[in-house]
Amino acid sequence: MDWFGLLGLDELSHGLANLSMFPYFDVAHYVVSIMALREQPGALEVSRVSPLACWFSSMLFCFGGAVLSAIMLAEPAVAPLSNSTSVLLASITWYLVFYCPVDLVYSCAALLPLRLVLSGMKEVTRTWKVLGGVTQAHSKYKDSLLVMIAIGWAKGAGGGLISNFEQLVRGVWKPETNEFLKMSYPTKITLIGAVLFALQQSHYLPVQTHHLMLVYTVFTVANKARMMLTGSSASPFAAIESAVYKALFAGHSPYAALAAEVKKARIDRGATNGTSATKAAIGGNGAAEGPSGSLKAKEESEKKVN
Amino acid sequence: MDWFGLLGLDELSHGLANLSMFPYFDVAHYVVSIMALREQPGALEVSRVSPLACWFSSMLFCFGGAVLSAIMLAEPAVAPLSNSTSVLLASITWYLVFYCPVDLVYSCAALLPLRLVLSGMKEVTRTWKVLGGVTQAHSKYKDSLLVMIAIGWAKGAGGGLISNFEQLVRGVWKPETNEFLKMSYPTKITLIGAVLFALQQSHYLPVQTHHLMLVYTVFTVANKARMMLTGSSASPFAAIESAVYKALFAGHSPYAALAAEVKKARIDRGATNGTSATKAAIGGNGAAEGPSGSLKAKEESEKKVN
Amino acid sequence: MDWFGLLGLDELSHGLANLSMFPYFDVAHYVVSIMALREQPGALEVSRVSPLACWFSSMLFCFGGAVLSAIMLAEPAVAPLSNSTSVLLASITWYLVFYCPVDLVYSCAALLPLRLVLSGMKEVTRTWKVLGGVTQAHSKYKDSLLVMIAIGWAKGAGGGLISNFEQLVRGVWKPETNEFLKMSYPTKITLIGAVLFALQQSHYLPVQTHHLMLVYTVFTVANKARMMLTGSSASPFAAIESAVYKALFAGHSPYAALAAEVKKARIDRGATNGTSATKAAIGGNGAAEGPSGSLKAKEESEKKVN
Repeated sequence: MDWFGLLGLDELSHGLANLSMFPYFDVAHYVVSIMALREQPGALEVSRVSPLACWFSSMLFCFGGAVLSAIMLAEPAVAPLSNSTSVLLASITWYLVFYCPVDLVYSCAALLPLRLVLSGMKEVTRTWKVLGGVTQAHSKYKDSLLVMIAIGWAKGAGGGLISNFEQLVRGVWKPETNEFLKMSYPTKITLIGAVLFALQQSHYLPVQTHHLMLVYTVFTVANKARMMLTGSSASPFAAIESAVYKALFAGHSPYAALAAEVKKARIDRGATNGTSATKAAIGGNGAAEGPSGSLKAKEESEKKVN
Repeated sequence: MDWFGLLGLDELSHGLANLSMFPYFDVAHYVVSIMALREQPGALEVSRVSPLACWFSSMLFCFGGAVLSAIMLAEPAVAPLSNSTSVLLASITWYLVFYCPVDLVYSCAALLPLRLVLSGMKEVTRTWKVLGGVTQAHSKYKDSLLVMIAIGWAKGAGGGLISNFEQLVRGVWKPETNEFLKMSYPTKITLIGAVLFALQQSHYLPVQTHHLMLVYTVFTVANKARMMLTGSSASPFAAIESAVYKALFAGHSPYAALAAEVKKARIDRGATNGTSATKAAIGGNGAAEGPSGSLKAKEESEKKVN
Repeated sequence: MDWFGLLGLDELSHGLANLSMFPYFDVAHYVVSIMALREQPGALEVSRVSPLACWFSSMLFCFGGAVLSAIMLAEPAVAPLSNSTSVLLASITWYLVFYCPVDLVYSCAALLPLRLVLSGMKEVTRTWKVLGGVTQAHSKYKDSLLVMIAIGWAKGAGGGLISNFEQLVRGVWKPETNEFLKMSYPTKITLIGAVLFALQQSHYLPVQTHHLMLVYTVFTVANKARMMLTGSSASPFAAIESAVYKALFAGHSPYAALAAEVKKARIDRGATNGTSATKAAIGGNGAAEGPSGSLKAKEESEKKVN
């Protein structure tokens, strides 16, 4: 747009578009991802019980998007493993984050200023991955907006989308929640990016690629910084989501009766078991019934910083 | 066969073979599938908690067969998504079934006469999918009967075969049962169709394709109508299954002793827990042991109308 | 090497390299695998409740490696099914092991001398599978050692690696353990073989293929025989593993504090529930937390004979 030219941002956006993710941005992505894995409950224990499981989990955190989009496009799932330099870098990062003497690397990287910079760099790689996924899908499925969005989303947020199975590697199984039922902020922002880039690549959005890259990257980095500095996890989309939900999905038809039924069932189970609503969501045969617990979980998730 | 010519059914079978599934039969398939999803326990709640999870679940119900056979043949799993018109139709159907004001669409479609017609049309699409899968496999694996049956079965009943994972999207996890342990009627009839069409395509069954299509379609539609009208879920194959089972699989060797052992274990656990046999099937570490519960479940399933 | 020539083993290694696995070694592999399946808790019950689930499970035990490596390389997962002769042989073996009148086949094959011979023959097929996987990966990913190791490992030990999902077919779900968290002996020996053959194919290990095949086969067969005859499951690698673990992975940093925390939590939960540590590892919402139970399980596994 002319605005970009006027604001002198045209050169900046070209510079950003030509920036190489390797090696610094990629390493920042690995560090932040593996730190996030380490902060999961039980992950440190797994790292002592089975370094192999811990390593494989870390690789899924780092390359989950590439693996998921490869599976969706019927390309070899091992292809990301064939990039030996990246895997080596990620493995070294994994080793240092989990096993460095006196825990030096993790302690330093967890300091807010450094963590802020690394997280910002990770957000920059997000743009590259989403755009990469969208263009890859565009070359094979020219007319399908949905496929472009799906692949862009998978490439950018694959690690989160396959979280149930990544947790399974660590012996954790939480079927009552997943990124579809309760979308975390990174997955949400990646979906939005995938939609924007898909519309732009199909020429529905009359913006140049490098301009959109700049706007999207600045938005994600700024928002991430804000969330980390204020400690707030208030999603910038909360108002829009709420409006869309009320307009489209909060029909009166079965829900009023259903909500009453669910509340009654919860009260009954609460009286019988004397347990919390989340536990009450578990059916008698050990299967986890997600949604009752999810209603509660949805409220809790808005407090989490991702 | 000459019978077809004599009965004047030759033209009917040709007409059926040339019938296009799009759009009416496809839409009937979507409506019936999504209504079946809606009637699953917890599905309405998911539709309010997370429309995205509900939509994805519905797409798996509608296109599960195409996705599963694509994965089995190493074709892109997103290929069904690239058919934008079908996905759009299915999405509109999903929206109307779950969120229509005053629940108009669901209430009307659930009326027996209309539901009967829609279910009949869905059974017609089953023939197309099975035949499509068998011929697709035949073109790549000319001599392999087993692959043809597998792909035909997957294409026709994929939604049921991947039910454990479709439920996972909704936060439900019931590992103690699946379509192999306890096959539902639609999956059974699809398997039979896959076997028949595989034998016919490999010229073991000397029948012309369009004749077999007519016979199979008439059988499935008539049986479905009978089951819906009488409210009976008695499988037409029960006698044959029983005979085959007794002849081949009910050997005396370990089972007598085993059955006694299982009964004794059930009685012990029943005395300790004071719970039903199904709950007694759950092992102490939270893992679900399927078969004890399945023995009971197998009896219950013969009462279900699918 | 010259040693091979001097010891007159050159001819033996060539003979071994040219040996065909079909049909005797393949059948031995099927028999031993299906017997291992039969000895799993609950498998006999599944064989009576649902022969189809039992058959599919057996096929996964027999061909799991081929299926897993096909999926990883984006080749059709049904390709192993297209080898009709192998599938037929495996199916006949399945039927005889589970349903033979007076349980003749299983009783005979379980006698130690015969079981020893069959297990030895199965170990020979392991060499072929690992080498096949490594060379297949080498042809597509010449420079990637990691991909070659991954595919060789998958082909040789696929049945074990996908055990969680094979158990799911039988209605069993044990997420708290898998081959990454607690590697069984066969999986370990296959990984070592995959590493050796990958190094040899990439010319890092200056050994001829048929020589390495002979050494590896003799080692695996001898070790398997020793373990079966002595009833000991002491791994020959225990000392090396222990040394590597202490050197690389037993850093002081977070573990001391963590271990104390874990012990305290276990004591608390033990006091509340009055149950074993394994049960105490299960979180309140039914999700299985693997590692605490795995620490205990790791000790138990060293007693198991695989």
